[in-house]
Amino acid sequence: MELFEERGYNGTTVEEIAARAGLTERTFFRYFSDKREVLFSGSRQLEEAVTAAIAGAPAGAAPIDAVVDAFEAAAERLEALRDYAWVRARWGLLVEHAELRERELIKLAALAAAVAGALRERGVPEPTASLVAEAGLAIFKVGFERWVAGAEPRSFAAQVRAAHGALAAIVGAGPSAA
Amino acid sequence: MELFEERGYNGTTVEEIAARAGLTERTFFRYFSDKREVLFSGSRQLEEAVTAAIAGAPAGAAPIDAVVDAFEAAAERLEALRDYAWVRARWGLLVEHAELRERELIKLAALAAAVAGALRERGVPEPTASLVAEAGLAIFKVGFERWVAGAEPRSFAAQVRAAHGALAAIVGAGPSAA
Repeated sequence: MELFEERGYNGTTVEEIAARAGLTERTFFRYFSDKREVLFSGSRQLEEAVTAAIAGAPAGAAPIDAVVDAFEAAAERLEALRDYAWVRARWGLLVEHAELRERELIKLAALAAAVAGALRERGVPEPTASLVAEAGLAIFKVGFERWVAGAEPRSFAAQVRAAHGALAAIVGAGPSAA
Repeated sequence: MELFEERGYNGTTVEEIAARAGLTERTFFRYFSDKREVLFSGSRQLEEAVTAAIAGAPAGAAPIDAVVDAFEAAAERLEALRDYAWVRARWGLLVEHAELRERELIKLAALAAAVAGALRERGVPEPTASLVAEAGLAIFKVGFERWVAGAEPRSFAAQVRAAHGALAAIVGAGPSAA
């Protein structure tokens, strides 16, 4: 991230990233499939944490609560783990580079599929599992973007909670009779 | 699509596609940026139709109704326009080829951004506009997948309506007090 900030994302080579991290290029490619992947190193842990939390939710929990609670916990962990400046700098790179946004979309789609799978394992049928997963991702994404934008409240987990409440208010009425 | 079915997606060249369509390769690339794009030729019209419908929704319409009605109308048009076998064959290619799924994700993200933009033009504030857009996309996607999977009811528009009702039932209660 330091290097990306110093030289720009396009101007930084894998060789330079590896050197800064004290790795050979060969070792770098044992950990990361390409340069982009450096910015997505947390996505696997996120997926594992979220699916484990869904699996461990109380038996009577509504699917949407199991999912949003899992994302809230993940948001809290991310806040504890990552420097806010780092998160914002990473987000700035994504906004700037289409190829990074594409990688992000792929990771989020994989996360949605994993969430739907974790729900099916709990006995949630389709299409409910997929709908809950997509709704959960929408809540997580919008909560994240509000947090990165510096909106109040300042905590990522609180933004996730707020987005859940907002989504419920928005779609709660269901299709109008008209 | 015929060619993709005959020779497989990977085995088909742009030259062959252009020849089958009676175009030179040069003309092909005036219409499509690459081979993948052939399968996404409808995405721009979809975006235009959906954003126009949102702009033209009654002044008092709830944002989620404006969006879901727009997607329902788009679903109806797509059903009228495209052969169901063609839609299923295209979907089969997407399931099989990660690079096509990636392109689909990018198109859907662009559609979500356009929907959020159309809502902001109607005076819907953020983060409501983004949440409604993401919820609308979730409804459209799940409705589409049910339709392509041959689930009852057999109409795409009816599947979109059903997904809206299901999502409302799922998130309607809002965050639990716990």
